[in-house]
Amino acid sequence: MKARMGHHIAVVALAAALGLAGSNARAADALPSWNNGPAKQSIAAFVERVTAQGTADFVPVAERIAVFDNDGTLWAEQPMYFQLLFALDRVKALAPQHPEWKTQEPFASLLKGDVKAALEGGEPAIMKIVMATHAGMTSDDFDQIVRDWIASAKHPKTGHLYTEMVYQPMLELLAYLRANDFKTFIVSGGGIDFMRPWTEKVYGIPPEQVVGSSGKSSFEMRDGTPVLMRLPEVNFIDDKAGKPVGIHQHIGRRPIAAFGNSDGDLQMLQWTCGAPGRRFCLYVHHTDADREWIYDRNSSIGRLDKGLDEAEAKNWTVVDMKADWARVFAFEP
Amino acid sequence: MKARMGHHIAVVALAAALGLAGSNARAADALPSWNNGPAKQSIAAFVERVTAQGTADFVPVAERIAVFDNDGTLWAEQPMYFQLLFALDRVKALAPQHPEWKTQEPFASLLKGDVKAALEGGEPAIMKIVMATHAGMTSDDFDQIVRDWIASAKHPKTGHLYTEMVYQPMLELLAYLRANDFKTFIVSGGGIDFMRPWTEKVYGIPPEQVVGSSGKSSFEMRDGTPVLMRLPEVNFIDDKAGKPVGIHQHIGRRPIAAFGNSDGDLQMLQWTCGAPGRRFCLYVHHTDADREWIYDRNSSIGRLDKGLDEAEAKNWTVVDMKADWARVFAFEP
Repeated sequence: MKARMGHHIAVVALAAALGLAGSNARAADALPSWNNGPAKQSIAAFVERVTAQGTADFVPVAERIAVFDNDGTLWAEQPMYFQLLFALDRVKALAPQHPEWKTQEPFASLLKGDVKAALEGGEPAIMKIVMATHAGMTSDDFDQIVRDWIASAKHPKTGHLYTEMVYQPMLELLAYLRANDFKTFIVSGGGIDFMRPWTEKVYGIPPEQVVGSSGKSSFEMRDGTPVLMRLPEVNFIDDKAGKPVGIHQHIGRRPIAAFGNSDGDLQMLQWTCGAPGRRFCLYVHHTDADREWIYDRNSSIGRLDKGLDEAEAKNWTVVDMKADWARVFAFEP
Repeated sequence: MKARMGHHIAVVALAAALGLAGSNARAADALPSWNNGPAKQSIAAFVERVTAQGTADFVPVAERIAVFDNDGTLWAEQPMYFQLLFALDRVKALAPQHPEWKTQEPFASLLKGDVKAALEGGEPAIMKIVMATHAGMTSDDFDQIVRDWIASAKHPKTGHLYTEMVYQPMLELLAYLRANDFKTFIVSGGGIDFMRPWTEKVYGIPPEQVVGSSGKSSFEMRDGTPVLMRLPEVNFIDDKAGKPVGIHQHIGRRPIAAFGNSDGDLQMLQWTCGAPGRRFCLYVHHTDADREWIYDRNSSIGRLDKGLDEAEAKNWTVVDMKADWARVFAFEP
């Protein structure tokens, strides 16, 4: 009886907590790392409208789908995509098994420490690096490789774990949306299997709510044990016009809110906000050279050019990181 | 205050309802259309074990993933896959716009009512029918076409709506698993976009938990409005060795329970039960010529041959439909 009472109290407390969400004052409480400006206000206004029962803007819980880009939107992406840093570490780790890499580009340059020269080969060079480091093992083995790396590798500038390089205001936003019965998804150009081992712990987003780029794989029996072998072949690139396709493929519903930071997210925002009913589209604009990085129209990583123009034309919310975020990373003093 | 009290009472009632699930007696209550035999007992025993906290078999809620085939497992598949019947209806509806079909196979035979002759062309013929009826429109248009058909088309033998041709014991099983905090997914060889418009209402399975075969699609702007165009090109076949691949791609976790009825589900069951920890694999065996259909090793639809042997060898649960199900369809007298 005591245990059951405790259960009741916990459930009632949970219900009360959920009941708290939904008014402007409560958004302020739920988003403490957001300065009280137009970005925060637009988020709160949207959430209040779609959760207000009996109004024209009300959206049933099942349709409260929110999609988030990852690189540059939930965690940082400078000085280069973290998954590329993972791949470079893997090239070094695998080099002893690949003596031929000493004379083969882009591996030769990488192993000499000249990342810039290695990447001069452009997309084909990057593909070679990705395939050499992301294929040729089972899904379980790759999962473990990612877990080991993400638990130990440090960011070259800050010295922090990569999972600490996540934006505190965005963590609060994810939690705020979920408290208002949104289902939160990642829709990233990054590798789906590179994200899944840690997104649940870091973002509260389970593997089945992660959409990303992927390679092909094949089901095989090895000594009577079933495995999925990762093949060196592209299956799907979840970027640009691929993002709405990936959303449709994985989620099968049109989101009502989308969050990105680059032109690679533009079609996802167009798809989300280009439908009837109340919708919300937001760009994170990297404007803070001190606490993070400053880049937009001319950056090779996370370029935000067409998207910035379209955000202005369509009245989407643009987060000015420097002005709108009271704190960027949780580790800040 | 009154409203809040009502809310509390509802939440407490919900908690009590959830608290009910999980013991043998309760499984009996939750599965009234299952006769009390070894199949029902094996289901209840599995659910009790993986939900028993503090035991070696306990599985955390997040990992309680259950996957279900659709055709022949959740709804019937005779005299042919219902999606094929949908495609045949679409061919008839579209025929006026395609005068050339009068002389082109497989369309010519179909339009004369000779389905058997049309399907003599095998897989290439079926592909032609599928592409002619499932591609060339937007995702929204296809969604509406499916909704209209599923709301009105009748099964050729029973005269019932196709959504009434679902197995009552399996509906109870889905609900029983969800009451024990399982997340239920469909993993079907059928078309993902053919299932999603109705699975939530019929099975309680939302679009984002449906995995299936798919065609490619492309994101396009039409007069400033974004659309996804369905292309006449295969993207993924979610059958046989494709099922574990589809599971990995969409769910990103290994299921702990899998339910199928044919050799097309064998790899899904192998993948689910071929891992450490307590697992559950079940085959529905079509043994009831009176209430449903009787077929297995020699059927061209839903053949269950290798799977039946492997189920015996690996001690998987095999449902004898005739003996184990007190009721097959809800519409039975």
